[in-house]
Amino acid sequence: MLSTKTNEIVVVKTETSKIEGIDFNNLTFGRTFTDYMFYCDFENGEWQQPTVAPYQPMTIEPSARVFHYGQAVFEGMKAYKDDNEKVFLFRPKENFKRINKSAARLAMPEFPEDYFFNGLQTLLNLDSAWIKPGIGNSLYVRPFVIATEPAISASPAASYRFMIICSPAKAYYTEPVRVLFAEKYSRSADGGVGFAKAAGNYAAQFYPTSLAQKKGFQQIIWTDASTHDYLEEAGTMNIFFRINDKLVTAPNNDRILDGITRKSVIQLANDNNIDIEVRRVSVNEIKEASRNGSLKEIFGAGTAAVISPISAFEHSEEVFEIPTTKDSYASLFKTQLLNIQHNLTDDKHNWRYEIK
Amino acid sequence: MLSTKTNEIVVVKTETSKIEGIDFNNLTFGRTFTDYMFYCDFENGEWQQPTVAPYQPMTIEPSARVFHYGQAVFEGMKAYKDDNEKVFLFRPKENFKRINKSAARLAMPEFPEDYFFNGLQTLLNLDSAWIKPGIGNSLYVRPFVIATEPAISASPAASYRFMIICSPAKAYYTEPVRVLFAEKYSRSADGGVGFAKAAGNYAAQFYPTSLAQKKGFQQIIWTDASTHDYLEEAGTMNIFFRINDKLVTAPNNDRILDGITRKSVIQLANDNNIDIEVRRVSVNEIKEASRNGSLKEIFGAGTAAVISPISAFEHSEEVFEIPTTKDSYASLFKTQLLNIQHNLTDDKHNWRYEIK
Ligand SMILES: Cc1ncc(COP(=O)(O)O)c(C=O)c1O
Ligand SMILES: Cc1ncc(COP(=O)(O)O)c(C=O)c1O
Repeated sequence: MLSTKTNEIVVVKTETSKIEGIDFNNLTFGRTFTDYMFYCDFENGEWQQPTVAPYQPMTIEPSARVFHYGQAVFEGMKAYKDDNEKVFLFRPKENFKRINKSAARLAMPEFPEDYFFNGLQTLLNLDSAWIKPGIGNSLYVRPFVIATEPAISASPAASYRFMIICSPAKAYYTEPVRVLFAEKYSRSADGGVGFAKAAGNYAAQFYPTSLAQKKGFQQIIWTDASTHDYLEEAGTMNIFFRINDKLVTAPNNDRILDGITRKSVIQLANDNNIDIEVRRVSVNEIKEASRNGSLKEIFGAGTAAVISPISAFEHSEEVFEIPTTKDSYASLFKTQLLNIQHNLTDDKHNWRYEIK
Repeated sequence: MLSTKTNEIVVVKTETSKIEGIDFNNLTFGRTFTDYMFYCDFENGEWQQPTVAPYQPMTIEPSARVFHYGQAVFEGMKAYKDDNEKVFLFRPKENFKRINKSAARLAMPEFPEDYFFNGLQTLLNLDSAWIKPGIGNSLYVRPFVIATEPAISASPAASYRFMIICSPAKAYYTEPVRVLFAEKYSRSADGGVGFAKAAGNYAAQFYPTSLAQKKGFQQIIWTDASTHDYLEEAGTMNIFFRINDKLVTAPNNDRILDGITRKSVIQLANDNNIDIEVRRVSVNEIKEASRNGSLKEIFGAGTAAVISPISAFEHSEEVFEIPTTKDSYASLFKTQLLNIQHNLTDDKHNWRYEIK
């Protein structure tokens, strides 16, 4: 169905692949790019010719609005290959919807659904050799949109570029991470853009995160900006708390990214008859649960890290270690997700999307 | 003193100026760029060769971190020419300090002071013909820094480009503006990056501002994100309220840009023996003052607009018109500022900085 429009994409082929030089067992996340990229410009109120071309530097004016006013949104998804060389994405329609939600919040034009999926199909077919089978391997797929109009008045641009670039990936965090609960800095405001995958949300976290890292914590769990009393999410992951046998995670609001992995974990919890509550989670509740031994696990959920166990947190200069649990939910969900993603198990919710 | 290092800048000259084609009486803000630009790359932990070259498009990787994580900060200043062809900037040291404050908050390297001022000197000398004398004319000068490293992991970049581009300008807002007081959306959070001139802060305002514009208001006055009870600043201006003969403006905090025009207005108020209070200003106080007739003026203060009178505001679906005042403070400060900027009057605070 989607493939009928694929031939509308202009494809510029390269004779030489860079793949021979790549050590797939030694990849640093996000530094190696595949042979091809997808792009499509928005001009005169319309998306123009979608194109797949060799990955290469681009030419842009120094006055392009993206450099000055941060009109930029992105998505992150992964492609997986099974042992029969079939390639799958995981719930890409959710990424498609979310990038347009992000774009709308930043006064950017929405991207057409058929362009998005035809672009992915064409690109991933050409770059198929970059997707290695086997759990732990994937191709990270990065759609993004930037404001290209050369004009530095503080208002929305009239021209944009939508692109997809791809980078082969291994699992993002391999070790359990130690986190700081935010007490001073914040990630986003009520009525702000925290729910959007807006570029500026990420740069804003780098400095506070570097302070946390100096103290020996890899990540920050952000709290609500007004009181810092409620736990929200991490820099690139939503967060789950297991208290005895019950899971708890914060509800979505306009500060939190509506994560696709989070959504999937909530569904899997239901499928596994694990009790799950979506409600505000206070710092005090978690400290208390840690003290009385009912806090069994904390883990992050996100495309890059899949499921990332958290081994300790700090709040008010006090460090709380989380003992490892047998039969951890984190590893249960991780296994179930990876099995679905790699086509090793049934897909009863239709989460896999095949690249044909 | 500064000029002794100027010869360290590599200058690439152009044979042809674009200036002949420019109608200086019909300029749209931020769309026309001068003949030259300044740039300097940060690589291997150091700022490299500073260069002035013809303004031109640049080449950058699609994976450059600025496109994905919004690591980008900027400044805005203006150059003025007097009738003797002397060129001045207004308090550029404040812009220099502020861009480094912004950079630090976004985990970006600070730029050296001598590079900054030598760059400005060299660039503005080459582009001097673009600065027209006479009040209302100026050259808008835009220093900015972007993360150029081609890597899409969510962490600070290792390479950056610092640039200065220039655009000839007329006054930004000519008509008094009508504003909305924010009730739902917010510009920034406590503990966030609102005090920095971070690119992402601006894109976040475009959509709420477009909603305001549909209702007939050109700008939004942002309120504190937690309660929306206190008035903070506009998108590119700090805000002053005149109640009877007293001026009031919000204090700086981590949500508000520490404006150079604001600082100068506070000084001028003192110089003119105008009573000024720097304190929180509530929406209710201003509505009440409007109702009882003590609200005489509201005006914005910022580099682009200089001083911009506000003629009406809306809150809770109620519109408050502000009658025009004889002997307005807005026009007093505007005249005094422009006279200092254009070297038409004494400069007792040493705000002018001459380009030699
Ligand atoms: C701020 C933030 N929260 C959560 C997530 C997890 O979302 P998802 O599961 O859709 O990848 C991400 C990353 O994508 C993120 O950037
Ligand atoms: C958010 C914001 N507030 C206030 C201002 C005014 O600051 P300045 O007077 O330094 O130009 C600006 C513009 O520069 C701004 O972007």
